[in-house]
Formats: sequence, structure tokens, C-alpha cells
Amino acid sequence: MPPRGSRLNRHNVISDKTVGRLSLYRRLLTRLLEKGEEQIFSHRIATLSGASAAQVRRDLMVVGYQGTPSRGYDVKELCRCIEEFLHHPGGQRVALVGLGNLGRAIVSFFGRFRPSLQIVASFDTDPSKTGRVIHGCHCYALEEIEEVVRELRVTIGILTVPPTAAQAAATALVEAGVGGILNFAPISLQVPEHVYVEDIDLTMSLEKTAYFARHPE
Amino acid sequence: MPPRGSRLNRHNVISDKTVGRLSLYRRLLTRLLEKGEEQIFSHRIATLSGASAAQVRRDLMVVGYQGTPSRGYDVKELCRCIEEFLHHPGGQRVALVGLGNLGRAIVSFFGRFRPSLQIVASFDTDPSKTGRVIHGCHCYALEEIEEVVRELRVTIGILTVPPTAAQAAATALVEAGVGGILNFAPISLQVPEHVYVEDIDLTMSLEKTAYFARHPE
Repeated sequence: MPPRGSRLNRHNVISDKTVGRLSLYRRLLTRLLEKGEEQIFSHRIATLSGASAAQVRRDLMVVGYQGTPSRGYDVKELCRCIEEFLHHPGGQRVALVGLGNLGRAIVSFFGRFRPSLQIVASFDTDPSKTGRVIHGCHCYALEEIEEVVRELRVTIGILTVPPTAAQAAATALVEAGVGGILNFAPISLQVPEHVYVEDIDLTMSLEKTAYFARHPE
Repeated sequence: MPPRGSRLNRHNVISDKTVGRLSLYRRLLTRLLEKGEEQIFSHRIATLSGASAAQVRRDLMVVGYQGTPSRGYDVKELCRCIEEFLHHPGGQRVALVGLGNLGRAIVSFFGRFRPSLQIVASFDTDPSKTGRVIHGCHCYALEEIEEVVRELRVTIGILTVPPTAAQAAATALVEAGVGGILNFAPISLQVPEHVYVEDIDLTMSLEKTAYFARHPE
């Protein structure tokens, strides 16, 4: 049995850690490409990303591109392969629930992803927000989730609602066909097995940072 | 040798995962306390948090409070013990660097922590922001980091700057005495061994969610 957080793909188990690192490598490589770098060795990617060189090589084998021992990897080609692996060719559509300060910042932050991961709808209970376009994204009333998500063929949800509203919003998203949720609400969502949940718990992260700031190694 | 992300404390190795879960338990317990619940068993905490009951019991031993097999844990006393473990009695002071949309949302989000984890200063390069109080927090110019952080005895930094500005900001924070950094910039920060870095990589998290949304179990 693959561990939780892993999925079977191309006859291999691809862990969420591998997918996470591939996302990081692609961003690092894009930056190097912009600076005019054409070739790179795994140990350089390792230094920039904080992984080991062996780990980088294992991860990159997943995307089906191998470098050569003498010249390393072609940066542009490697970027293209990772991009192809991470993103669906037709793009994927995202809906965000909860347009508070954090929700608005997230809509704005991910605005630059279009069209590969496009936030096409947001939802809120506040009538001063619903019916308006906020940060380039139409805001609907909360009770419209299922209808709008189905109609716009949204497959990914982002939850930036208070914890008391999170489970109901997650259930509505899943019932409308969403297969992955990026959850900022500090609760453990109950979803069917096939739905992937990625939790970002800001409070937990700050409390961890605070604890280890006063208990150094 | 403890793994990276662990620190020695009270003669035990306390992992960052344990500290993270304690933060989560405390929030769950606070909510139950508000609803009037007085006693709780480990398996209930496990269900609510997504951990196993054995894991919950191991984690709670770290804070030095043990329940009884017949009545479980006293919710109020358990909350107090976790609070005491997680938070410094005198509070800890936080500075945020980068007051864009995300930075402002984070300042607003953590505003409710006062006084145990108080954001006492923010920094930006934009002269339309510096010198002003934004979301209850004074915004200083970036070049004032070292002076202000020392003067206000800040020990925790939050980075919400673009990746190109992150390393310089981290270095300035560390030189002024910061021991922990919550880093939203998508780069691997180079800091001394004694400094704890907690990375929140929004892009990576969304890309992972997107990948597993279309490769279900």
C-alpha cells in the first residue's frame, strides 16, 4: 500500500513530497533560464533547493528526462518536462471560498498562474462582495457553490473560510466534483478517499517557528 | 543525531511535527472548552485532529500532563499545559518583511495573537507604506530592519517579500538576533544552524493539489 499522500501514476508511486520538489525545481530553473543559463548539474539544483543531488536525480527521473554526466541537464528542456508533468495541458480551474483578507490575498497571489491554474470563481457570504469582480475574479454567494463549480468545471478548491464554515464548504465542493482542496482552515476536513487535501495551517506554522526560535539546536 | 527540524528540549527530542500537532490540539481543545466540554479522551482528540490515539497520547506526554483511563483529560487543564509549552510566558515579538497583499493579510490574520505572539513591526520598500500604521502595525523602511529588530527585541521574522529580496531580508533579521523565520518566499534560505526556518510555499501547495486532483487514488 502506498503511504497516505501518495498516488499511483505511470505505474510508479509518486509521493506528494516528490511533486512538491518538482514544483520547486521548476521555479528555480525558470529563474536560471531567465538569467541565460542553459545547462545545469543535479548538485547545483540540489544546493539551490535544499535537497540532495541523489534526491534531485531520482525526482527528475519521474518526469522522464535524463541528463548526461558530462553536460548535466538542458535547463529549457527540463523546465518543459516538469511543466508537462505538473500541469494539465488544458489547464485546471480553481474556486476559492472565503474572500476575507487572506482569501483576497490568495486570489491576487495566484492571479499570475493563468491559464494553467486559473481561479475562475470565488464565494463569500458577505452581500457587499457577492456579485462583484474582486481581484479579477467573480464573487458568488456561498449557496451557489455546487451550481457554479459544476458549470465552470472547477476541479480544485481553496478554503480561506473560518473553521466553523470549512467542512460545509468542503462537502459542497466535493459534491460538485472537486478532486483537490487547498485548505487554510485549521480543521481536519472529512472528505472521501479519492479527494486530496493539502493543509496550510498558518497558526501552527507561526507557533512552531516561535517554539524553535527559543529552543535553538 | 536528531533529524533536521528537531530540537533538544527538556532532555527529549521534540520534533517539529509534535510541536505542530500540539498547536492543533490546543486550538481544537479551546473550541471544545468554549462549547462547555470538560473531559476528553485521546481517541476523540485523534478523530478531530487526524492523528492516531497513540500519537495523541505520546504528544501530550511531552507537555507533562497525563489523563486518567476512566475520565480522560481535563480539557481546561490540558489547554493550559499546551499553552504553557508552546508560548513563552513573556510573549515573543514578531516582525514581518514585505507588506504586499499577502503580507497585509498575514499581519491582519495574526493580529489576534497579541500579546503571546505579537507582530510589533513591519518593513517595506514602498515609501507610500513606510512611516504608517497598517493593520495596527508600524511599517518601517527596509534598511531599518537591524536597528528596529534589535530595539524592539524581535525574535521571530515573517518573510512575505519577492524571492529576489528574501535572502537579504533573512540575513538582516538573523544578524539582528532573530531565531526563527516563517518564510513565504519560494527560495531555500541560507541561515546559520541555530536558526529555525519554516517554509510555506503557496505555489508548491497549489501545484501539488492540482496534480493529485487529477491523479486520484
